[in-house]
Amino acid sequence: MGSSLVEALVDLNAHVTIIDPLIEGLGGNLFNIRRVSEMVKVTHKDVRDAEATHRLIGQSDLIFHFAGQGSHSRSMDSPEFDIDLNIRSTLGVLEAVRKAKTNPRMIYAGTRGQIGQVTREVDESYPELPTSIYGVNKSAAEKYCFVYARHYAIQVVSMRFTNVFGPRHQMKRPDQGVLNWFIRLALENKTLEVWGGKQKRDFLYIDDATDASLKAGIENRAVGECFYVCSGRRISLISAVRLIVKTAGAGRYIVKRYPEKEKGYEVGDVLLSNKKARRYLGWRPSIEFDEGIRRTVQFYRTNLRFYV
Amino acid sequence: MGSSLVEALVDLNAHVTIIDPLIEGLGGNLFNIRRVSEMVKVTHKDVRDAEATHRLIGQSDLIFHFAGQGSHSRSMDSPEFDIDLNIRSTLGVLEAVRKAKTNPRMIYAGTRGQIGQVTREVDESYPELPTSIYGVNKSAAEKYCFVYARHYAIQVVSMRFTNVFGPRHQMKRPDQGVLNWFIRLALENKTLEVWGGKQKRDFLYIDDATDASLKAGIENRAVGECFYVCSGRRISLISAVRLIVKTAGAGRYIVKRYPEKEKGYEVGDVLLSNKKARRYLGWRPSIEFDEGIRRTVQFYRTNLRFYV
Repeated sequence: MGSSLVEALVDLNAHVTIIDPLIEGLGGNLFNIRRVSEMVKVTHKDVRDAEATHRLIGQSDLIFHFAGQGSHSRSMDSPEFDIDLNIRSTLGVLEAVRKAKTNPRMIYAGTRGQIGQVTREVDESYPELPTSIYGVNKSAAEKYCFVYARHYAIQVVSMRFTNVFGPRHQMKRPDQGVLNWFIRLALENKTLEVWGGKQKRDFLYIDDATDASLKAGIENRAVGECFYVCSGRRISLISAVRLIVKTAGAGRYIVKRYPEKEKGYEVGDVLLSNKKARRYLGWRPSIEFDEGIRRTVQFYRTNLRFYV
Repeated sequence: MGSSLVEALVDLNAHVTIIDPLIEGLGGNLFNIRRVSEMVKVTHKDVRDAEATHRLIGQSDLIFHFAGQGSHSRSMDSPEFDIDLNIRSTLGVLEAVRKAKTNPRMIYAGTRGQIGQVTREVDESYPELPTSIYGVNKSAAEKYCFVYARHYAIQVVSMRFTNVFGPRHQMKRPDQGVLNWFIRLALENKTLEVWGGKQKRDFLYIDDATDASLKAGIENRAVGECFYVCSGRRISLISAVRLIVKTAGAGRYIVKRYPEKEKGYEVGDVLLSNKKARRYLGWRPSIEFDEGIRRTVQFYRTNLRFYV
C-alpha cells in the first residue's frame, strides 16, 4: 500500500520520503519502487526511532503513517512486537507531527479489524470490539491520533481499510492478505485450502485504496474523521477462490472446516458501509472485483519471482 | 481501591496476595493495610514483570487487576510510562491467567475515562472515544481482556469505574481523585481552586465500588461483560466543593475559568447509566453523597499525616 501511494504521489510531482526499515515479513520490497526510486528519498530508519522520525518528517506537509505489522495471528503470538510496531510507532509519529512547524496532515492507516464481528451492516459510529491484539492496537493507535488532534490541534484522518489486494503485496506469508496468498498458490499450480468458504469479505483493489488515501490528503472535511475504506461489495471466500483458479488457469482448491485454533480470528461476514468515505472524500471504488483479480494475476505471472 | 478490596476479601476469609511495587505517586500506601497486614501476603513485585506475575497468581481463583496508573495528565506527559503500566502490565496478567491451571476469574478495573465526551446518558453499548492517552490505554487493555476471553476461554469482567472517592486514597497529587485532593486542601484550611464548576460528575463512594467488585467476582452472568460502575447521581463540581468546605468546617474556594492547557481533558457532564451493573451484578450504590463526604473528611481528619 505504501509503495502504490508513493508512485501516485511522485506522479503528482510531490517530494516523497519513504521511511521503511524493511523488517523481514512485513511486506517492504524495493522492487515495488523500482520505477520511481530515483525520484524519492528512501531511508531505512524505523518509525519506532522517535528522534529519527521527528528529523525526517518535521518538514513535511503530508504524512501517510502506513507503517506497522498487519497480521492478526502474529499479534497473538507476539503481542509485545505488535505493541511496538502498531502503538509505540504511532506515538512517535504523532510526536513528530505535533512538533513539526509545517502543520502537516497525517493520514493513519487503520483497519476493518478494529470493529470485530458484526451481524448487520454498520458504519463508523458503531462500537469497536476487535478480535485480536492487532485489531485492539490499531484501534488504540487511531484513538491516539484523535487524542493528539484534541489536545494539540493537529490534522488527522483515519482510513480503516478493508481487505486490500493487488500488485506489490507480499507473497511470502499466508497470514496477511489471503487473496494474494491464494493467487501465489494458484500460479504455482498448488492446492488452495479454503477454511469454511461461505464467509463474505469486502475486497478492495489497491488502486481504489490509494485513490482514497490521496483524497484524504486534500479534502478538508476529512480532517478529524475516520472512514471504512471498503468496496461495499460482499464476496464469499469460496467464490473469490473459484475466480482466482479460473483466472490463473492453474491450481485447484479444497474446502476444509475452520480449524479450532484459528476460530478466534474468524468474524463471519464483513458488513461495512462506505457511505461516509464516499461522501466526505468524494471517492468511489472503480475497479470491479474480477478486473482486480485479473490485473493481480497478470502482475504476478510476470513478477512473482521478486516476491517469493 | 485495592486495599479496600483486600480488607473486604480478608473479612470474607479469602487468602489474599497483594502485588504492588509501591511506585511513587501511584497511591500505594502500607498504612492502608495495617489492620490486615498479618493476614495477607504482600509482595512488591511489579506486574510488568510477567514471570513474577505468572508465579504469583498462577494458583489463584480470583484476580483483581487493579494495577496501573490513573492520571490523565501524566499519561499525556509520559505516554510510554502509561503504555507500560496500563497496557503491557495487563498483557502480563492475561498471560498468567491463561496459563493458570485454576481457571481463575479476572476482574479488570476499567474507567469511565474510556468513553470520553457524551451529550446524553449512555450505557456500555456506546462507542468509546477517550480524550487522553490514559483513556485509550485503559480501553485497549480492556479489549485485550475480551480478546483473550475469545481465544483462550478465560473468564474476565471489566468494571469501568467512575470518579471513586473516600478513605485510603492518595492525597499527594491533584491530578488523580479531585474530591480527595479538595478534602486535603479544606482540612489544611487552604483555598480550593475550582475550574468551571458547573460540570457534573458521577462520584462513587469507595465502599460501593468495593461491593461491586466483589459481586463481579461471584456473579456468573457478569463474565465476559463490561460495566459502568457509577452512582447514577450527577453532582456539579461546585456543589461538591461547597459540601466539602462545609463538612470540613475549614478552607474556602474560588472559581476560575478552565485553563487552556487543561481543556483537552475536560469532558463536560458525565452522563452514565448504571442499569447494567445493577441488573447483572445485583448491586446498587448505598452510600449517599453527603454521607460519603462526611466519612471521608472524618477519616482524613485523623489520618491525613499518613498520606501527605
